[in-house]
Amino acid sequence: MRWWGWGEDGHAVPLSPAAEDLLRDELGADPSVRKPPVAFETVSMPEPNLPDAVRERLATALGAEGLRDDRETRAAHAVGRSYPDLVRIRSGDASSAPDAVALPGSAELVAAVLGLCAQHRVAVVPFGGGTSVVGGVEPVREGFAGAVSLDLGRVSEAVDVDRTSLTARVDAGLLGPELERRLREQGVTLGHFPQSFEYSTVGGWVATRSAGQASTGYGRIDELVEAVRCVTPAGELGTKAVPASAAGPSLRELVVGSEGVLGVICEVTLRVRPAPAARRYEAWSFASFAEGCDGFRVLEQAGAAADVNRLSDDDETRLTMALGSSGSTTEKLGRRYLRMRGHEGGCLAILGFEGSEEQVEDRRREAAALLRAGGGVSLGHRPGDAWYRSRFAAPYLRDELLERGVLVDTLETATSWANLGKLHEAVREALSGALAGRGTQPLVMCHVSHLYPSGASLYFTFLARQEDDALAQWEAAKTAASEAIVAGGGTITHHHAIGRDHRRWLAAEDGELGIEVLRAAKQRLDPAGVMNPGKLLPDRAD
Amino acid sequence: MRWWGWGEDGHAVPLSPAAEDLLRDELGADPSVRKPPVAFETVSMPEPNLPDAVRERLATALGAEGLRDDRETRAAHAVGRSYPDLVRIRSGDASSAPDAVALPGSAELVAAVLGLCAQHRVAVVPFGGGTSVVGGVEPVREGFAGAVSLDLGRVSEAVDVDRTSLTARVDAGLLGPELERRLREQGVTLGHFPQSFEYSTVGGWVATRSAGQASTGYGRIDELVEAVRCVTPAGELGTKAVPASAAGPSLRELVVGSEGVLGVICEVTLRVRPAPAARRYEAWSFASFAEGCDGFRVLEQAGAAADVNRLSDDDETRLTMALGSSGSTTEKLGRRYLRMRGHEGGCLAILGFEGSEEQVEDRRREAAALLRAGGGVSLGHRPGDAWYRSRFAAPYLRDELLERGVLVDTLETATSWANLGKLHEAVREALSGALAGRGTQPLVMCHVSHLYPSGASLYFTFLARQEDDALAQWEAAKTAASEAIVAGGGTITHHHAIGRDHRRWLAAEDGELGIEVLRAAKQRLDPAGVMNPGKLLPDRAD
Repeated sequence: MRWWGWGEDGHAVPLSPAAEDLLRDELGADPSVRKPPVAFETVSMPEPNLPDAVRERLATALGAEGLRDDRETRAAHAVGRSYPDLVRIRSGDASSAPDAVALPGSAELVAAVLGLCAQHRVAVVPFGGGTSVVGGVEPVREGFAGAVSLDLGRVSEAVDVDRTSLTARVDAGLLGPELERRLREQGVTLGHFPQSFEYSTVGGWVATRSAGQASTGYGRIDELVEAVRCVTPAGELGTKAVPASAAGPSLRELVVGSEGVLGVICEVTLRVRPAPAARRYEAWSFASFAEGCDGFRVLEQAGAAADVNRLSDDDETRLTMALGSSGSTTEKLGRRYLRMRGHEGGCLAILGFEGSEEQVEDRRREAAALLRAGGGVSLGHRPGDAWYRSRFAAPYLRDELLERGVLVDTLETATSWANLGKLHEAVREALSGALAGRGTQPLVMCHVSHLYPSGASLYFTFLARQEDDALAQWEAAKTAASEAIVAGGGTITHHHAIGRDHRRWLAAEDGELGIEVLRAAKQRLDPAGVMNPGKLLPDRAD
Repeated sequence: MRWWGWGEDGHAVPLSPAAEDLLRDELGADPSVRKPPVAFETVSMPEPNLPDAVRERLATALGAEGLRDDRETRAAHAVGRSYPDLVRIRSGDASSAPDAVALPGSAELVAAVLGLCAQHRVAVVPFGGGTSVVGGVEPVREGFAGAVSLDLGRVSEAVDVDRTSLTARVDAGLLGPELERRLREQGVTLGHFPQSFEYSTVGGWVATRSAGQASTGYGRIDELVEAVRCVTPAGELGTKAVPASAAGPSLRELVVGSEGVLGVICEVTLRVRPAPAARRYEAWSFASFAEGCDGFRVLEQAGAAADVNRLSDDDETRLTMALGSSGSTTEKLGRRYLRMRGHEGGCLAILGFEGSEEQVEDRRREAAALLRAGGGVSLGHRPGDAWYRSRFAAPYLRDELLERGVLVDTLETATSWANLGKLHEAVREALSGALAGRGTQPLVMCHVSHLYPSGASLYFTFLARQEDDALAQWEAAKTAASEAIVAGGGTITHHHAIGRDHRRWLAAEDGELGIEVLRAAKQRLDPAGVMNPGKLLPDRAD
């Protein structure tokens, strides 16, 4: 991962002239602005300052390859990949860099690292792929004798597939592509494809209750976890790999989503499926967002939803069309057809079906009948294919927008079907109001992307011309949106997790007493309080 | 509920002559034996002994109808409905009767009862329908100033259906039939039908992670709970009703399955479905249990399982046939057909499909093709209808067997498909060995009844001639089976919960550290330790 942004060189998504026009016309952004990251040599970070005893004992336990404190490694573990993270790191601020990065090669060595750090009150930040967009992997040092980033990169060997039971016991440090490659070798897939897929890990997915683009079909990660093995400072917490149980409260569900504050997830038993032989992505159009939501609801409640289901609102549809416009004849004909059907300015939907050839065709047919009955118009497979090809590209585009001095961020929630339209409107207004109120006219757009029988997720993207104080501007928009979500009956996060950025709103999910229960669990597992401080749990008022 | 057994008068299931022969031939039971319950007047229980201050303040808070300590009410709350419970209560032993039964009419009054009891160190036993088969509702008095059974019978008003989102917010004290009646009025169903359905409550299902007969189709209760409201001595723990969330560990999953040791579940938001218009139950036969298990696995992993799926092993099939034999010509013809197909002594499967007429037919067709490919032979709808009619009758039959001096109990587990056959054999051998070793030749039978992509449940029924020391005999069998389950990689309970009877084996599920985490949560929510003592959590070694 490049220290200042997403992924690797060679994948840049340059802005088209149409996109430049749009930034100028709608945001008032100056197309000539360039705000590149500083040169790496000028990035500032404190000198590594781990207590000597800890440093020596870690080096002995982990070996030369297992403990690093060079500038490159520390910078790569200083922040995650949220908008404020990138604003800071691009400006050369790596003040949050850990004192060292530990790379234990086994659960036993993870336990050794935790034991040492707890003993010496050194903060430990579990680190998978480092793609958190909520401040989940940024070391916090205050009150500690130092901070170590514990990188799971070397706990990434085992992929034991039980082909009969369709489960796989895997090491938590495996990156998405390597996991899928190993699973496909045995004819199965996990089907978990978050946008971060190429750079995020199994352990990270589980620790953050991740959802992937195809999770409506394959299930959220919390539905795919059969068992976990979590190493804590107080010992190992392991749950039994059984398909279901009535043996009391679910400890698995306490570890899933624990974001490193209880311990380090080292191994996970996952539910896998036969790898799909066929895949078909296609587009539909609805006259309005409300009509599209209703179509999706009917689809999902009939058990006929696709694996991927996305419905863009008017503004996201308009932007997608504008940026994707190639002026081709096919496209023009398509637009004329939609206009005739009264769909101009309508809402674009993408549906993706995976499975055997026969399953895909059967499911497409069933879904198509329901979508048509709900007012949907088929746009064929081209826009679907285009979406599929670029499904992991958005973070690269974000880097390009930052380079142009544009604020761009996303946030998500979920609520009941009955409340979906109202919450969509409330969050849009909150974001628009907060940004327009500062004199930076925004673009706010949204899509529905995960369907449940009782409701769906809303995923917002917002853009504005970046202010000089980029962090204050972002903070204002983020706070307004979060307050609107909580007041409007949504969850503060559908799949990005709590991290540092959502802590203030955890009480709206769990109540003060619920948070106290989580603190009691943490106290038992991490009595020294060294596990990922400053994340998930709000600071105590006292 | 009759004080000495199941349900109400008028539903007795008398033993057929064929059944009497079978008990004599296979168990060595004497058909002339009768062991009726003692007369109610001779049932012994301690005098109610609640501290005066508590009694007076409870009476003031709850009113005359809200606090009872007559013999009938106390006896009805002395035990659950497990085999050892019934052995004791039939013999006149109600020594575990609570000092009083509190019937608060609201969550606020539940909180008042908990506050008073915590203050005076009076044990509180949350009580729904009292149908626990693991000792979950038996008051424990030792170390407390008294014991109150907190009956949710009056928290049973609200059923608020959101037809758009297919959810229902309901009071926890509602009994199964009343809940379903109220839901059907609005065109929806929960689809949750445990064998105890007629006498168990929503709150009880949630507190014990219940599974119903149709849970393969409709989902276990833990999959149907969108949100809970739990009143604890430390305050109220409520979770947000959203379809999905990434906001940290799931507190809902800490409350689900908490068996009253953390607090009292007063309200639940449930996921419901459109009520089915059609229902079709039918039978199939497989040449062997292994072949049937494989057929069920293929069905489930193809997403083609029925809503109800039951597969009896050889002994259960034999017994079902023997007891159901009417000697009719149709049946004889059916047997001849099976014999010709090499299925004599095969295994009986029941499949139940629910939904619209079209859905039922489509699903039946898909399932039939897969079952036939796996060696299954269709037996038509008659045995399916017969099973459906008698699906809640087994507890009445148990009363009849107790009357005849026969030990009869059930226990269940779940494991992976790869391990299913091995675990089936191990538990059978453990039960047979333990009972035969005492000179009481047993009948041990089993069925698969809940399917998951990664595995299935095994539900064992065992019978033997009752020894004089019936409890010691039961304890020996239960212990042997539980040890075999735990050693064989199964969960100690698939849907009966932990209660008092499975506490010893909780460490095999959660580990000692996991239990410590649960204790930490309890300590925070119930610092006085008055909530359902002696259940779920093992006593500390110290």
